[in-house]
Amino acid sequence: MAFEPELYIPNLSYDSVIFGFSGEKLKILVLEYHNTGTFALPGGFVRKDEPLEDAVKRGLSERTGLDEIYLEQFHTFGSMDRFRPDIMRKILAEQGHILEDHWMLGRFITIGYYALINYENVTPKPDELSDSIEWYDFDQLPELMMDHHEIVRKALEHLRTHLDHKLLSFNLLPEMFTMKDLQQVYEAILGEPQNRANFQRKMLSLGILERHEKLYTGGSHKAPFLYSFKKS
Amino acid sequence: MAFEPELYIPNLSYDSVIFGFSGEKLKILVLEYHNTGTFALPGGFVRKDEPLEDAVKRGLSERTGLDEIYLEQFHTFGSMDRFRPDIMRKILAEQGHILEDHWMLGRFITIGYYALINYENVTPKPDELSDSIEWYDFDQLPELMMDHHEIVRKALEHLRTHLDHKLLSFNLLPEMFTMKDLQQVYEAILGEPQNRANFQRKMLSLGILERHEKLYTGGSHKAPFLYSFKKS
Repeated sequence: MAFEPELYIPNLSYDSVIFGFSGEKLKILVLEYHNTGTFALPGGFVRKDEPLEDAVKRGLSERTGLDEIYLEQFHTFGSMDRFRPDIMRKILAEQGHILEDHWMLGRFITIGYYALINYENVTPKPDELSDSIEWYDFDQLPELMMDHHEIVRKALEHLRTHLDHKLLSFNLLPEMFTMKDLQQVYEAILGEPQNRANFQRKMLSLGILERHEKLYTGGSHKAPFLYSFKKS
Repeated sequence: MAFEPELYIPNLSYDSVIFGFSGEKLKILVLEYHNTGTFALPGGFVRKDEPLEDAVKRGLSERTGLDEIYLEQFHTFGSMDRFRPDIMRKILAEQGHILEDHWMLGRFITIGYYALINYENVTPKPDELSDSIEWYDFDQLPELMMDHHEIVRKALEHLRTHLDHKLLSFNLLPEMFTMKDLQQVYEAILGEPQNRANFQRKMLSLGILERHEKLYTGGSHKAPFLYSFKKS
């Protein structure tokens, strides 16, 4: 289906930072445009008759194949530095578009969203505009276009600041987990080791965890407690 | 100067929630449109060649007469519920505009900003579109148009969550203040009394305050310490 610009709000886009974690390293989902060497966050546009949140879910599903993902809005980016028609010209030319007065050559203000998912549970699929969509280690990202590094930085800052109260929404951990599982998530996202005793004390003081029976594996004398997030 | 719609990004606006505090109650700045009984937050539009942050400062200055105010972006609102051409028609008709295909009858996504200022230091001035611009007690707001109550609610939620680290940016207190001054700010914004000892303990534990000499008034045996925010 051809893209019909008159159906969309001009000069406005969204971009999503999809953080992935699976017990070890923090990763980010990055797409590459066909034959341009241009790497970008998955993003899209809002139809004139469509709620913003629906547009973001629809776009993420179309571009990455990911559905049912909880996305958190964190910031809207509106500087003029992000106006880079030269980069858009290259991508559009590769896609065979007529460049004169093309809708996407305008200036865009973009609304940033992020998510945190277990990347082992999902298989991203690129759409037809994209060469590939891949998980990259957070510390080995390719060069991203325009201000997308700044968008990633601000998303991570937001995630770090609000992790205590957002982790439940992101549904990253299994129903029951150990304090060590939780500590691994924090270490990956905060980017630094946590002291085990201090971490446990802080987590328990937040009042967000419910303690269950111990996890008996048979192999150890120190069976760890299992926890879940409190409902509500 | 006539408004020239072709210079502005269509379908996109911003709205600002200006909280005012002066030692006692929390207030909000609300404007009323001429002869319509319609109350609204001060807002505006972004020029196609203008950085978002500049647009917000320019608009606030034009509509309210307030300059040099630190504004914090908190959320972008994009539901279809906020599309209310009936309300805009009434305002535009009163302003003598031709209604057919008017730019402002479209659907708008709005970017929310808030500020916290000492309302004794400023005198808001309405622009020519507005009847009045007044401080209203937070618990006695008039009925605001569209989703402006929701915008206020979300701004207050953000301010409450981030007060410990935003208060310095808002430059609300004098250079030197007592713990009681600080407690009054928190009580007005959180909307509930704080226990004096707990409040002091929490504030000191944040590591954001510097303690100075005592404030000797001559009238009391219990001279309170003076504090300032730490530079950084």
